[in-house]
Amino acid sequence: MNNLLKGKKGIIFGALNDKSIAWQVALKCHEQGAEFVLTNAPIAMRMGEINKLAETCGNAQIVPCDVSKNEDMENLISKSMEILGGKIDFILHSVGMSMNIRKGKAYTDLDYKFHHDTLDISAISFHRLLQTCYNMDAMNDWGSIIALSYIAAQRVFPDYNEMADAKSLLESYARSFGYHYGKRNKVRINTISQSPTPTTAGSGVKGFGDFYDYASALSPLGNASAEACAEYCLMMFSDFSRLVTMQNLFHDGGFSNTGFSYDVFKLMENRD
Amino acid sequence: MNNLLKGKKGIIFGALNDKSIAWQVALKCHEQGAEFVLTNAPIAMRMGEINKLAETCGNAQIVPCDVSKNEDMENLISKSMEILGGKIDFILHSVGMSMNIRKGKAYTDLDYKFHHDTLDISAISFHRLLQTCYNMDAMNDWGSIIALSYIAAQRVFPDYNEMADAKSLLESYARSFGYHYGKRNKVRINTISQSPTPTTAGSGVKGFGDFYDYASALSPLGNASAEACAEYCLMMFSDFSRLVTMQNLFHDGGFSNTGFSYDVFKLMENRD
Amino acid sequence: MNNLLKGKKGIIFGALNDKSIAWQVALKCHEQGAEFVLTNAPIAMRMGEINKLAETCGNAQIVPCDVSKNEDMENLISKSMEILGGKIDFILHSVGMSMNIRKGKAYTDLDYKFHHDTLDISAISFHRLLQTCYNMDAMNDWGSIIALSYIAAQRVFPDYNEMADAKSLLESYARSFGYHYGKRNKVRINTISQSPTPTTAGSGVKGFGDFYDYASALSPLGNASAEACAEYCLMMFSDFSRLVTMQNLFHDGGFSNTGFSYDVFKLMENRD
Amino acid sequence: MNNLLKGKKGIIFGALNDKSIAWQVALKCHEQGAEFVLTNAPIAMRMGEINKLAETCGNAQIVPCDVSKNEDMENLISKSMEILGGKIDFILHSVGMSMNIRKGKAYTDLDYKFHHDTLDISAISFHRLLQTCYNMDAMNDWGSIIALSYIAAQRVFPDYNEMADAKSLLESYARSFGYHYGKRNKVRINTISQSPTPTTAGSGVKGFGDFYDYASALSPLGNASAEACAEYCLMMFSDFSRLVTMQNLFHDGGFSNTGFSYDVFKLMENRD
Repeated sequence: MNNLLKGKKGIIFGALNDKSIAWQVALKCHEQGAEFVLTNAPIAMRMGEINKLAETCGNAQIVPCDVSKNEDMENLISKSMEILGGKIDFILHSVGMSMNIRKGKAYTDLDYKFHHDTLDISAISFHRLLQTCYNMDAMNDWGSIIALSYIAAQRVFPDYNEMADAKSLLESYARSFGYHYGKRNKVRINTISQSPTPTTAGSGVKGFGDFYDYASALSPLGNASAEACAEYCLMMFSDFSRLVTMQNLFHDGGFSNTGFSYDVFKLMENRD
Repeated sequence: MNNLLKGKKGIIFGALNDKSIAWQVALKCHEQGAEFVLTNAPIAMRMGEINKLAETCGNAQIVPCDVSKNEDMENLISKSMEILGGKIDFILHSVGMSMNIRKGKAYTDLDYKFHHDTLDISAISFHRLLQTCYNMDAMNDWGSIIALSYIAAQRVFPDYNEMADAKSLLESYARSFGYHYGKRNKVRINTISQSPTPTTAGSGVKGFGDFYDYASALSPLGNASAEACAEYCLMMFSDFSRLVTMQNLFHDGGFSNTGFSYDVFKLMENRD
Repeated sequence: MNNLLKGKKGIIFGALNDKSIAWQVALKCHEQGAEFVLTNAPIAMRMGEINKLAETCGNAQIVPCDVSKNEDMENLISKSMEILGGKIDFILHSVGMSMNIRKGKAYTDLDYKFHHDTLDISAISFHRLLQTCYNMDAMNDWGSIIALSYIAAQRVFPDYNEMADAKSLLESYARSFGYHYGKRNKVRINTISQSPTPTTAGSGVKGFGDFYDYASALSPLGNASAEACAEYCLMMFSDFSRLVTMQNLFHDGGFSNTGFSYDVFKLMENRD
Repeated sequence: MNNLLKGKKGIIFGALNDKSIAWQVALKCHEQGAEFVLTNAPIAMRMGEINKLAETCGNAQIVPCDVSKNEDMENLISKSMEILGGKIDFILHSVGMSMNIRKGKAYTDLDYKFHHDTLDISAISFHRLLQTCYNMDAMNDWGSIIALSYIAAQRVFPDYNEMADAKSLLESYARSFGYHYGKRNKVRINTISQSPTPTTAGSGVKGFGDFYDYASALSPLGNASAEACAEYCLMMFSDFSRLVTMQNLFHDGGFSNTGFSYDVFKLMENRD
């Protein structure tokens, strides 16, 4: 209860169920005094339990949004300002979906129609969000916007397939738009590159269990949990990080800078 | 005349006129003993002087290719193998086009239909090329594939607009596909991140002249020319760099690792 | 008053006067409920106004320490645990000094005896601190240690001279030791790469004023102040960033990822 | 026989025996038409078989040099110019030694006297070489200088111990001095970050065999051999890479950008 976000207004994308990072972010933001709108794709909302979350968070309102549609995005932003009674201070973008993975297509056999859809949902949606906010002048000065990313944007993890490319693109938007929004409104835009996390989406990737253990063995602090990620998001939303922008921040227990650890060998030995 | 590419067969995309990096690459590859096919978009071929280049290069054959079409890519690869009498050893991808820049749209006001087209032509075309080669088993083992990139993939250069994001995506494909093609055929895939170059495409970017001078002042060796870039491509095509893959290689006179130089101040003083 | 560090015990190196980043860190840590020991080189303490700071911070105790001496470091750590009544939760290392700059030696004419001293004071002191804590088992689990760095560790800023190399070495220690301390005690170790800051040390670098303006013009949010840096340190000391380790974190208003800005041209025009 | 270095004069450090990368570099440079001086520490020369190499290379001359002594470095440079009849075109720095590893000291228990020696021999020696050349104006314009590095400069490989820090420092010198030497003489300075290589020095690192296999399993092209590294050095010495400077170039079969590969799991399974 540090009141880190007291009086701040936000929008949180992507809370599907209590395994979602976005779900944890919502809980912590509420705890820290923020008010916010929850959003997700209409279809995800039907499957998910977002209403339960909304109740827990002081009856937060829910505005559905298909992130691949400009008009949905505009509707979300204008509704959110209406509901919250003013401009926005923070946004979490936690959105991603790979059509080719879903259809079982290998990285060396992509369907490009699907690939365009993957990029649109997982990365271009972030630009669309930023551009909509920018043109509606929806963010308060010094607001903070975060998108969740993954180290596959820098290095190859074969099973991550086309999502690697989508995350590279996502991180590029954070830099490029961070420049413009920083100049005009001091709004800062960053990505957080999180450990593999057993969310519904994460667990769906082939071989997730093996890879999760491998990453944990390699990371000096182990894999970062969804809760820990939520706390880091919170800090990046708060006024304590106001001069950090256009960065990709690794929240991964040290994985990104560890080349080798004997625990990987041990893991393998226990595996047999 | 070092015979660096003696007996090697290649495909060179993007030679529009003698200012093109691809044009210089073709000249040098010919000099070094390679045989190759030239290709460009049908529309670019009408405007360009590619026939002149083809003659100079021992009557190289020209195969037009719209890089956004799978069937064009397949045709190019199969024709090239036919013409050259076997599998391919090297490919240069020098392709890029920004629809939004062309239409005068700011980065904060992108048209997403155009943006998808930009990504398709400038980046996804590279994946399409790689996937086509991979599935037609068109590359010899230890072959080398290069795409030209720009440092806007890492840092913001405002006038470069959406091309920054396209280049990030392009570099990601080089890594991701480099993994798979390396595993199966030892084919190596890299991007070369070149200084701003006064090609027809480069010069079209708003404020190019100012920026060109700025980059040159900041780079300890000055900006790298198209000719120098061609020599570096050659080196990366040769057998002298066989264990380098999945890298983005800066060919920029030191620009990328220089934070400041007094020559920038001098440049400004002379400007007024 | 968010009580972010309530109950936490720390050690803060390098508060010389109210322009020092360490000075601001001490003020903010006190505000947030931490108890800590202040330390500096015996000679710096005579010149500085550290006593005034100590008073402001609830009569914090001061323990002098020559960071190039093992026994001084051991004394500091054991005294600090005695004074604070237990193990340590956070440490700020803000220490740097270039003997060659002080003696007016150019980077291409270094005196290697001086250079060894520079590395010892500015970088090896950090390893010495970490090793002393590690071997005395002085840190609580999940403790946080930060050293201040500068982007000259990645790119050349000619006037920064040999300090660039010292900062590269410093950042390497954070990674290397972060691995070992993370594995054993979940202690996390990071560096913060801060904007040029008009501290007593910073202002002493030749051409600081010009460069400060240049950096500010290039950074979308402008240069980060010492106060802002202190807030970011605080965040990294708190429990909200527990899974971040072995990272170099840019706190620079976006400078590190901005390649060019027209404000640099404007700056120059106003200069004449 | 591509005559890539025809008429070029060089200095090659570090050829101990035929497993040394420097040994392979000497052979290839000779093959490509270069003339050069061989050098090593007086003590290494007694153990090594450098005379045999010198004979093979057209009776190259050998000049011993203790790289931690300014006067030895000056003697080497002036003798080399005398022997070769003019200024130098290329230099290979392949020098490294860890006193703490040799004495069995863990990274968390470094002896700082030894550590200073390690840094002096493995990294500062490179600055000393550059500074000596610079002040004696010993390099031809557009000359090329390379030092061998390792990815431990970026990520932690626990057994690599203090050499990780030495390599970070080494790479920093390449950037910093590359700026100055580039500005004055267009001399380019780069580091090549090579795969683990079973040289006499490499094999001495604890657990080398295990790690070598791990790196090979992770690298899409497998580990790069000493011979392949020599070929890459050659290319970087040649005129085909003249605008590349201040870079750290990974020559590692793709290891640096691969996060995971199933071959690592397979390796483990075969191990038991």
